[in-house]
Amino acid sequence: MTRLLYDLAGADPALRFSPYCWRTRLALAHKELEVETTPWRFTETDRLAFSGQKLVPVLVDGDRVVHDSWMIAEYLEATYPDRPSLFGGPAAQALARFVNGWADSILHPWIARMVVRDILDCLRPEDAGYFRESREKRFGMTLEALVATREQARETFRKELQPVRLTLRAQPFLSGAAPAYADHIVFGAFLWARAVSGFRLLEADDPVHAWRERMLDLYGGLARRSPGHEV
Amino acid sequence: MTRLLYDLAGADPALRFSPYCWRTRLALAHKELEVETTPWRFTETDRLAFSGQKLVPVLVDGDRVVHDSWMIAEYLEATYPDRPSLFGGPAAQALARFVNGWADSILHPWIARMVVRDILDCLRPEDAGYFRESREKRFGMTLEALVATREQARETFRKELQPVRLTLRAQPFLSGAAPAYADHIVFGAFLWARAVSGFRLLEADDPVHAWRERMLDLYGGLARRSPGHEV
Repeated sequence: MTRLLYDLAGADPALRFSPYCWRTRLALAHKELEVETTPWRFTETDRLAFSGQKLVPVLVDGDRVVHDSWMIAEYLEATYPDRPSLFGGPAAQALARFVNGWADSILHPWIARMVVRDILDCLRPEDAGYFRESREKRFGMTLEALVATREQARETFRKELQPVRLTLRAQPFLSGAAPAYADHIVFGAFLWARAVSGFRLLEADDPVHAWRERMLDLYGGLARRSPGHEV
Repeated sequence: MTRLLYDLAGADPALRFSPYCWRTRLALAHKELEVETTPWRFTETDRLAFSGQKLVPVLVDGDRVVHDSWMIAEYLEATYPDRPSLFGGPAAQALARFVNGWADSILHPWIARMVVRDILDCLRPEDAGYFRESREKRFGMTLEALVATREQARETFRKELQPVRLTLRAQPFLSGAAPAYADHIVFGAFLWARAVSGFRLLEADDPVHAWRERMLDLYGGLARRSPGHEV
């Protein structure tokens, strides 16, 4: 049986930049489950029709099809209880959902403001039109106007990271002594930026920077070996 | 043995408005540990000298003196393992620290902008001078100038609550099916506002509002019976 993940890619099929797909890839690695990934582009919604929706990640695990990164994490935890836990128990799973909500609603919009224009340059021409149109509609301005304010956005972004910073001053990972899914969630956002942009998000002396380095080394350097900018 | 908590109070000794002290009171109630509270005012630092520092909460538990709400929570969990767990295991304890950091660095500053002027009216004259001076220094403006912008602050505050809202759309408490310390942390911030201000923080149809109502009912209505505004 081959386990297969539909994973957002750029024009270069090796460039994988979806923060949600990264959550799933890291979760699979954490649970020591092998997976084959297939590059998928924004306009290839037909290829996902079998999943009943239009977004990645989609995981095909034997005869099971699961989509949505959070649903996949819950599925993996329930289906493979003998593998290393993604959460560390029900209370931690509940709080990982808070981290998930924080990443989706606070962290991602700020990162998007800084890197979304750079994504455009990573896409096939046939995907770039969709991308520009949908993102300019979401932000209510051109991607060029958005990126012009990214230095100010970075100031706010770094303030919004303070909960991560305070946590990492007290412990090596968000999940405590060892990484788990809450770390994958937040790290996925940094891998999204790393894949597409050379814009420097973090100061070198930020505890979040040191944590990101530790995360890049996990699972045999899975993330570090992936194409991206060293910032 | 009497267990004693030094708890921030207003001119009315029954008015308890420290979000950090509320974390501790809720944690003690959660662990089914009785406590006597003694009202303490901002300028009574001499009364805390025995604790080696100047801030509440300070818990005196037999011959143990513990200060700092997070340290107290960890102390209670370690000292009373046979009582209901405050965290639900080490991974959840690690993630509760993230919620703690989020409340301290994001939630509290926004609530302060909206209610800090109202606190002034709740204090004894001999505490009000210290309070005005220290808070105006912190915010870099008069309390009156700060409160003049609180309707705009509320817009941002409600956006910053989105991680809480997303979590509570999926589960009844931040900690999952039942409340635990992560809920106490966030709820403590709302009790701070409730004690001192009639300014309406939440829309009635906000899932956070419904959760706050559930929290007010916990532990025999401990929080609801405490003096405060019904908003």
